[in-house]
Amino acid sequence: MDFELNEDQRAFEDAARQFAREQLLPMAASWDEMSTFPKDVLRNAGEMGFLSLYTPVEHGGMGLSRLDASVIFEQLAMGCTSTTAFMTIHNMVSWMVASFATDQARAECCPKLITGEWLGSYCLTEANAGSDAASLTTKAVRLGDHYEISGAKAFISGAGETDLLIVMARTGEAGPDGISAFIVPADAEGISYGRKEPKLGWHSQPTRAVTFDKVRIPAHYLLGEEGQGFKFAMKGLDGGRINIATCSVGTAQQALNLARQYMTERKQFGKPLAQFQALQFKLADMATELVAARQLVRYAASKLDSGDPEATAYCAMAKRFATDVGFAVCNQALQLYGGYGYIQEYPIERHFRDVRVHQILEGTNEIMRLIIARRLLNDDTALL
Amino acid sequence: MDFELNEDQRAFEDAARQFAREQLLPMAASWDEMSTFPKDVLRNAGEMGFLSLYTPVEHGGMGLSRLDASVIFEQLAMGCTSTTAFMTIHNMVSWMVASFATDQARAECCPKLITGEWLGSYCLTEANAGSDAASLTTKAVRLGDHYEISGAKAFISGAGETDLLIVMARTGEAGPDGISAFIVPADAEGISYGRKEPKLGWHSQPTRAVTFDKVRIPAHYLLGEEGQGFKFAMKGLDGGRINIATCSVGTAQQALNLARQYMTERKQFGKPLAQFQALQFKLADMATELVAARQLVRYAASKLDSGDPEATAYCAMAKRFATDVGFAVCNQALQLYGGYGYIQEYPIERHFRDVRVHQILEGTNEIMRLIIARRLLNDDTALL
Amino acid sequence: MDFELNEDQRAFEDAARQFAREQLLPMAASWDEMSTFPKDVLRNAGEMGFLSLYTPVEHGGMGLSRLDASVIFEQLAMGCTSTTAFMTIHNMVSWMVASFATDQARAECCPKLITGEWLGSYCLTEANAGSDAASLTTKAVRLGDHYEISGAKAFISGAGETDLLIVMARTGEAGPDGISAFIVPADAEGISYGRKEPKLGWHSQPTRAVTFDKVRIPAHYLLGEEGQGFKFAMKGLDGGRINIATCSVGTAQQALNLARQYMTERKQFGKPLAQFQALQFKLADMATELVAARQLVRYAASKLDSGDPEATAYCAMAKRFATDVGFAVCNQALQLYGGYGYIQEYPIERHFRDVRVHQILEGTNEIMRLIIARRLLNDDTALL
Amino acid sequence: MDFELNEDQRAFEDAARQFAREQLLPMAASWDEMSTFPKDVLRNAGEMGFLSLYTPVEHGGMGLSRLDASVIFEQLAMGCTSTTAFMTIHNMVSWMVASFATDQARAECCPKLITGEWLGSYCLTEANAGSDAASLTTKAVRLGDHYEISGAKAFISGAGETDLLIVMARTGEAGPDGISAFIVPADAEGISYGRKEPKLGWHSQPTRAVTFDKVRIPAHYLLGEEGQGFKFAMKGLDGGRINIATCSVGTAQQALNLARQYMTERKQFGKPLAQFQALQFKLADMATELVAARQLVRYAASKLDSGDPEATAYCAMAKRFATDVGFAVCNQALQLYGGYGYIQEYPIERHFRDVRVHQILEGTNEIMRLIIARRLLNDDTALL
Repeated sequence: MDFELNEDQRAFEDAARQFAREQLLPMAASWDEMSTFPKDVLRNAGEMGFLSLYTPVEHGGMGLSRLDASVIFEQLAMGCTSTTAFMTIHNMVSWMVASFATDQARAECCPKLITGEWLGSYCLTEANAGSDAASLTTKAVRLGDHYEISGAKAFISGAGETDLLIVMARTGEAGPDGISAFIVPADAEGISYGRKEPKLGWHSQPTRAVTFDKVRIPAHYLLGEEGQGFKFAMKGLDGGRINIATCSVGTAQQALNLARQYMTERKQFGKPLAQFQALQFKLADMATELVAARQLVRYAASKLDSGDPEATAYCAMAKRFATDVGFAVCNQALQLYGGYGYIQEYPIERHFRDVRVHQILEGTNEIMRLIIARRLLNDDTALL
Repeated sequence: MDFELNEDQRAFEDAARQFAREQLLPMAASWDEMSTFPKDVLRNAGEMGFLSLYTPVEHGGMGLSRLDASVIFEQLAMGCTSTTAFMTIHNMVSWMVASFATDQARAECCPKLITGEWLGSYCLTEANAGSDAASLTTKAVRLGDHYEISGAKAFISGAGETDLLIVMARTGEAGPDGISAFIVPADAEGISYGRKEPKLGWHSQPTRAVTFDKVRIPAHYLLGEEGQGFKFAMKGLDGGRINIATCSVGTAQQALNLARQYMTERKQFGKPLAQFQALQFKLADMATELVAARQLVRYAASKLDSGDPEATAYCAMAKRFATDVGFAVCNQALQLYGGYGYIQEYPIERHFRDVRVHQILEGTNEIMRLIIARRLLNDDTALL
Repeated sequence: MDFELNEDQRAFEDAARQFAREQLLPMAASWDEMSTFPKDVLRNAGEMGFLSLYTPVEHGGMGLSRLDASVIFEQLAMGCTSTTAFMTIHNMVSWMVASFATDQARAECCPKLITGEWLGSYCLTEANAGSDAASLTTKAVRLGDHYEISGAKAFISGAGETDLLIVMARTGEAGPDGISAFIVPADAEGISYGRKEPKLGWHSQPTRAVTFDKVRIPAHYLLGEEGQGFKFAMKGLDGGRINIATCSVGTAQQALNLARQYMTERKQFGKPLAQFQALQFKLADMATELVAARQLVRYAASKLDSGDPEATAYCAMAKRFATDVGFAVCNQALQLYGGYGYIQEYPIERHFRDVRVHQILEGTNEIMRLIIARRLLNDDTALL
Repeated sequence: MDFELNEDQRAFEDAARQFAREQLLPMAASWDEMSTFPKDVLRNAGEMGFLSLYTPVEHGGMGLSRLDASVIFEQLAMGCTSTTAFMTIHNMVSWMVASFATDQARAECCPKLITGEWLGSYCLTEANAGSDAASLTTKAVRLGDHYEISGAKAFISGAGETDLLIVMARTGEAGPDGISAFIVPADAEGISYGRKEPKLGWHSQPTRAVTFDKVRIPAHYLLGEEGQGFKFAMKGLDGGRINIATCSVGTAQQALNLARQYMTERKQFGKPLAQFQALQFKLADMATELVAARQLVRYAASKLDSGDPEATAYCAMAKRFATDVGFAVCNQALQLYGGYGYIQEYPIERHFRDVRVHQILEGTNEIMRLIIARRLLNDDTALL
């Protein structure tokens, strides 16, 4: 066993840290306040390779492992949670296109996704499906050399400002096996976007509903074969859970660092907060749980990388634990800041708002528990 | 022992519920979004007596007990947390003036505070004092028949839009015994207001810093005698803690009711959320802790009303427990709503933001623990 | 509302406190160590009226309310958790006989149960039923003027050393409506007792399985009518839950008092534990949650006394909350004692062991959550 | 990074698992019930190398890393927590003698400690010192070629049945720098042992106070030099914390496995517990936190092995987190077992009792928080 970053990983980490400090951290508060989607900075991230971290090298990506990517995303999230979370989504889009698209579609799209010239959105969730993705009702019908897509998606990150959509739509029977995945140009005729959804956090990425009214796309925009969409989605989900968990770890680390700094500076009753034992204990617990969360995330990422048969359960554990810890740490940091934690002049309340959605997205933490329990209770479980 | 509301209390509760449903609930989301300070509705509340609940009858108030007031504020908080919290502050101002002002000052101010023609702000907190109120540095100097006040206050609710300030300022030695309380007209020369502080929640009441630069007020605007200010503040604090705790209970009850309703309507995997056992358990725990919180708040209020020597400790317990439960319930309600809990189209995220500050204000919950521990460990404690 | 004990209740409380201090507290450690069932002290309790607290006055009992009884049991539990818990069971037996037995059976049994000349056990639980009481399989068949009972009960408190059993047995159809309740003399032919079950705590009351092999009892030992047994059991359960919750409150109060005392005496790093802020905070939280638990238990008891339609839900809330808090407080007290908390020379580990079962008995706390959720989600709920 | 066991570690793990299943698991309940100190089985463990895991190879030990040892101890703890915990203490004694003793003393003692012919106890704690080890008062005075030791130690594991004691005694000034470490034969004249301390758990290892009345030992039984004792103790402590944390992980894994099995077998309301969603969620959380705890323990062990400057803080984190999780998992397993969890016929209540002390020993978890906070708040911290 070896728990330390190797040389490459340390180099990636340094590069990501520097990018976060220079390009994300100084702007994050303003992006939050103005709900700015920072396309320019995302393109800069593309130049760094941050938009194609696990896209295979042969298709122009960085070809990194999920574990490597987690090291990088954690640093980026310390700069801006919301923007980094969008990058993880774009990475999934980029990876799906590179991995499953036809050669023609890949050639058309991949280079632009990798540089960030095009940004991508991922259209799985529907208003009535929520955690029950397999029940989706958006339809795709084959008509000669085209597919025609109709239906509606909800809570789509980036929608309205991105260039390419991956859309999960039903081409066959009810249930997961009838679902296919498509590349859809974001400006295709028949697509309309809802209003920009005001939300608690994640302000630097717009969220909109997307409606598809007989949207025609060429048949070669089908990913893989018909009926494989849900399988691709599930493959993406494990990695997506590592990513969202990682964003929680990075944000919480940032909040912990800030709280620690604040404790050394802020005085009450004639001495710094850092000298109050009860607050010291809280800081210690925040750090302890955060270290545990990071290790669990990396453990799960390595399980995913190695194709462990229980990788899905480990990813669910990491997502559940790290997003809960992430929120708890940010919430506690806010409390340590007192009244200053509640005002937008200080970054803590933004961290608190941004990480809250991680307990909900990519499968709620309740769904994570179901996934874990199902594997634990299965006769062939390798978790015990 | 009798744990049920009496007839009067039920009548007050009904009136408050109706007011909340008609005048607060329909507007709360918009006040939050637009950061509107609803002066007109506050005046309507004045007509109902809600701005002078425990102001003595002989001075035009309702003369109710703290327990009665808690019953009323709980209902109001179900309509709008932030506006109700402001009302509790105004009530404290109104009560302080009625209880401690000179006859002349009382006659000038009380009638207008009771009707809401004037709104009041309470200026205790300073940027560097925080939980350590006794260390405040704002100064008041007697000059003939005037006092001259200089200094700065922070996080003042209503500041910039209210008409009368209660200001705690130092007239004597360091420490609590050198503090006095003054009435200060909000538009007195030498007062300037900071920018409206953007904050996580409580948007319907503006928060500003207030600077006093040689502000002159007539000597009869001193409350009580010099050196009594901290004593008045402490008296106000016990009640203030009951009030903020009550606002948490009311908001959490509203969030619980919404979550329960949502669970019966929202379907996942083919059945309503209400049929998922793990979610049922969460709802049960939310309700249980909320009932416990309400009872503890009422218990503490009755201790305050009866002049129990441990009332301060009981109020601290109620504040600590009810504001923690209040946040936990709203946070859990948000989780039950899933993605819909995170968007501002639904009221849950507002409840989540609004109650968060209750764990900080009126003495942080850490200060509450200190107060409780001090009494528990004192030789003459009556808490055991 | 009035949250204070009335004069009578204070007198009961004083009497119970004195009894606990004189007759329970000095012996509790030894009863625990030797697994002694203290029949003599139980009879002394009978003389005080503590074995018939809510048995109607017309049948020789004290005729107190459940709220009164809770005040008394709390004090007794401060002296010995396990013995007090047995008294609560005996009280249920006494109350059931007085309330539902035929005149003849009541005349035979009640006087002896009230004095403690006879002690009673309550035989509901079966090994395979657990929380699912309605599925019990012990059978009773009417044969002329007798019933013949066959079957087996598990985890019966007092069994093997008590004199009278209340036995729930099936006389009819499957489900709750086929169950009847019987008085059974503990030495009736055909009854055999299992070995004394070694268990984590509650050592002063023996626990045994009881087997009934064609046990014949006179028909007038049926309580009420055939098929009413489950209804009686349910009636008993609400009160039983108040009682077990009360035992947790009393034990936790005792543990809190001990921990507080220990903190003032034990020195580490040159000063008493009481001066370590982080430990002060823990003590404060223990006290706060305990006060909340006590108030919730009393609230639920008053709901039961007044016949509130939601009394069952409130009793479930009180049981869930107070037994969880009770264990948490004892567990925390043990931690504050450090190594001394782990050795049997000090009483804390006994409190820790004794209260643990309260989260399981009288319906596990999981069952409590089901009961609460069912009422919350019911259309006609009065809980919101 | 590599999170998987290597081939050697898998072999060690297999050997330990087999030993646990064959020699510990079948006897653990009886050792607990009869308070048996299983010397024969400990000697069998010696034959396997389990009594000298990190004793250097050149002195006859296995020369393993702390990480390797953790893999082994975890398996052993699944068989018997208390006996394994004693083995970890013996390992520390064996390691201290091998590492710091004079050649002569090492030659006399090491071979016998390694085989288990001699068992060792570690005498650091004193009744009045507790967590404040540096304040110990046992004295050692140099008299020619002997030292004379006088004082008293408390809570000594194995005392009265072991053969060799490591004793920390003061040879110099107050504070940590005046402390030296000695080998003391357990039957030396002047040593007397207190009664076998009845305690909540850990029954298979006797605990006694030890009194030293002018106990003379040869001067070559000093470890290292005078004044180095506390340094050795601190070195031992980091590893001791990994060990106790490991014992919690192993025990909790055993409890989790049992609870999972029970859930698949035990039926309530007509279906196995495993089908109740709320219980599934609990199982999932138990497993998730346990996996996180194991990874954190291994991470800290690797930090200790690599001489990381923050190893002490990481060991404190691992100890705090894993012992808290360990207790929580066993406590939850007990709850899942319901009434069967409370009786000694089933192993769960033993696991619950045994792990409880891990939150107290080797520095209470409160001391862990202090250690972590001190490093976090230090200017040169490498934890952030």
